[in-house]
Amino acid sequence: MYKINDNYQKLPGSYLFSTIAKKVSAFTEANPDKNIIRLGIGDVTQPIAPAVIEAMHKAVDEMGHAETFHGYAPDLGYEFLRNAIVENDYKSRGCDISADEIFVSDGAKSDSANIQEIFAIDNKIAVCDPVYPVYVDSNVMAGRTGVYDTNTETWSNVIYMPCTMENNFVPEFPKETPDLIYLCLPNNPTGTTITKAQLQEWVDYANKVGAIILYDAAYEAYISESNVAHSIYECEGARTCAIELKSYSKNAGFTGVRLGYTVVPKDLKCGDASLNAMWARRHGTKFNGAPYIVQRAGEATYSPEGKAQLKEQVAYYMKNAATIKTGLQDAGFTVFGGVNAPYIWLKTPDKMTSWEFFDYLLENANIVGTPGSGFGPHGEGYFRLTAFGTYENTVAAIERIKKL
Amino acid sequence: MYKINDNYQKLPGSYLFSTIAKKVSAFTEANPDKNIIRLGIGDVTQPIAPAVIEAMHKAVDEMGHAETFHGYAPDLGYEFLRNAIVENDYKSRGCDISADEIFVSDGAKSDSANIQEIFAIDNKIAVCDPVYPVYVDSNVMAGRTGVYDTNTETWSNVIYMPCTMENNFVPEFPKETPDLIYLCLPNNPTGTTITKAQLQEWVDYANKVGAIILYDAAYEAYISESNVAHSIYECEGARTCAIELKSYSKNAGFTGVRLGYTVVPKDLKCGDASLNAMWARRHGTKFNGAPYIVQRAGEATYSPEGKAQLKEQVAYYMKNAATIKTGLQDAGFTVFGGVNAPYIWLKTPDKMTSWEFFDYLLENANIVGTPGSGFGPHGEGYFRLTAFGTYENTVAAIERIKKL
Repeated sequence: MYKINDNYQKLPGSYLFSTIAKKVSAFTEANPDKNIIRLGIGDVTQPIAPAVIEAMHKAVDEMGHAETFHGYAPDLGYEFLRNAIVENDYKSRGCDISADEIFVSDGAKSDSANIQEIFAIDNKIAVCDPVYPVYVDSNVMAGRTGVYDTNTETWSNVIYMPCTMENNFVPEFPKETPDLIYLCLPNNPTGTTITKAQLQEWVDYANKVGAIILYDAAYEAYISESNVAHSIYECEGARTCAIELKSYSKNAGFTGVRLGYTVVPKDLKCGDASLNAMWARRHGTKFNGAPYIVQRAGEATYSPEGKAQLKEQVAYYMKNAATIKTGLQDAGFTVFGGVNAPYIWLKTPDKMTSWEFFDYLLENANIVGTPGSGFGPHGEGYFRLTAFGTYENTVAAIERIKKL
Repeated sequence: MYKINDNYQKLPGSYLFSTIAKKVSAFTEANPDKNIIRLGIGDVTQPIAPAVIEAMHKAVDEMGHAETFHGYAPDLGYEFLRNAIVENDYKSRGCDISADEIFVSDGAKSDSANIQEIFAIDNKIAVCDPVYPVYVDSNVMAGRTGVYDTNTETWSNVIYMPCTMENNFVPEFPKETPDLIYLCLPNNPTGTTITKAQLQEWVDYANKVGAIILYDAAYEAYISESNVAHSIYECEGARTCAIELKSYSKNAGFTGVRLGYTVVPKDLKCGDASLNAMWARRHGTKFNGAPYIVQRAGEATYSPEGKAQLKEQVAYYMKNAATIKTGLQDAGFTVFGGVNAPYIWLKTPDKMTSWEFFDYLLENANIVGTPGSGFGPHGEGYFRLTAFGTYENTVAAIERIKKL
């Protein structure tokens, strides 16, 4: 008789955003007349930029003719895209990354969930707390996290690095030495980040203790301050300790287009084993490439027109971020983030729990946000709002909150 | 110090098709004047059907306007596609499958590699031999296959079900009871299949011994005989023992578009655990949906125009299959498949090994095929040709082979 992977049974409840979707759907059904504003899930609202739309139409046409039809993509992704990535995301920033270290994928969520597969099950992970749930959940499914304590809402075999207002949301080196360190900077959910100098300390630490940093740079396009690194490879020594995950979801609105990439430097070695070769083997065996049309869309984000249009889009969302931030501050909230990231992280008022504030906001202002505790125990008492709504909705949401 | 997943080190050599690509690329470099005909990797050559192209253009336009923009897709896939699947692929065949049992994905390769994740590591898999390499390799990576014996080219903890001309390529129930049974029907690589009555015996067997059948129906569109099942759910009792994997790569030429789906019936239970709920959790945590544009492309394959155009495309490839089959028979080869599948499986001449025949064909006829031994030890002495080339190339290839 077959048996299931018992680790799945250990997962408490459902995936955070599925839970929120169900709650909102129940509220909508009970209150069909209410106009809900969604600042919860980090989904974008602006349409795809014209330069990208044009590139996709062209690629669709190519697929319709035998002479220009494209079947299976190369394992690592098309060279036109990998070369554009190297030029624009790395060389331009002085980072030494080559095209055969880039692995094009269907998005950073898949990659950040799958990357743990190439590491041993008895490796110990360290995560910021609060944290994007995928890092921990994917390790739970793999059997790497030990036992879940429902009181502390933590896993026995995970190292948590609390990020709260007390430490300015900067993770500290853990007492116990980790093997794999997940860092998402600028951070989801807190919207905060660390300086390049602070990131350099993490790179030095990882090299010293023999750990791998899994660096999620999904929000890099939102960096506005000059002392913040856009890539971990801006730090010296990162090629021997860091894997970088990148997404087009937030800089180009590709949440429904699906494109990302992962950088695995060839200098990452564990004895004789090359992590680059291992990830190549995984990519070749368990994945069959991002669609040709989508890879052309990715290429178009690097054209002069594409770049200008995406810059405008990021500016649009950052105007929302500023609107939320100052609006909430005016309303007396304690607010973080929103400067180098599209997320605003606020302290819940009147000692409400995160879920209490979620319900309060949904019922009284018809606004959907994300409860901080959904991202980990140290997210309790916090709440995330995203800048990815329309400007009109964002302004309306803040007006509603001010009236509460 | 971090450690790697040692199971990767157990994998012998590289993924089959990567090896072939490298061999062909070396030959092309050394012989730039030779006109190579590729009948190796199962990639299609016909362009995407006009009805699908039209749907993709429309979807691209939608993505360019805020009112019709689509961000993150629903976890299981858009209802418009899942409903079309249920109506066309199941209800029309009398199969009782509902939309919440369909999981839309970026292709059957990912699904067939990932599906093992929801099962325990100590489950024992059974595969046909020869077999599509992804089934075994993904289980090797997970640590389920034991030790590799380089002499027999088999894994100590895998049950092999030989499929050769001696048993008409019909797998027999193994002596040892398996937990997970991979069946690909019509079969890749042999191009053969079994009758619906024979498949019913497998369903009965699985229900009796408590095994799960992982049923890869990627080549279903090529079935020409009426006594062959298009879905395993045509068999009684399949809802309690079978997961079905489907692809749009071969029926609609989506190898570079990327779309597939997996059916996990709600009747699949292991104690209290629902496999449907487990796969939903995996899908929600480790995947973020197929692109909206691609899901609309999938929907268009079910429109009246789409269906008619795809039928023509399948007929085109099956004309190639007949051309290869009769051509090789005329040339004195022993040939199988090609009736319900786009693959022709031939016995290598003069007791050549599969790789010897690969080199012989590449060097003397400049034709790329796939060595049978690349699919498993009982593929040794066989060779696969695909019907996915153009008709002109297929005719030319057969002419070249006849002249050898």
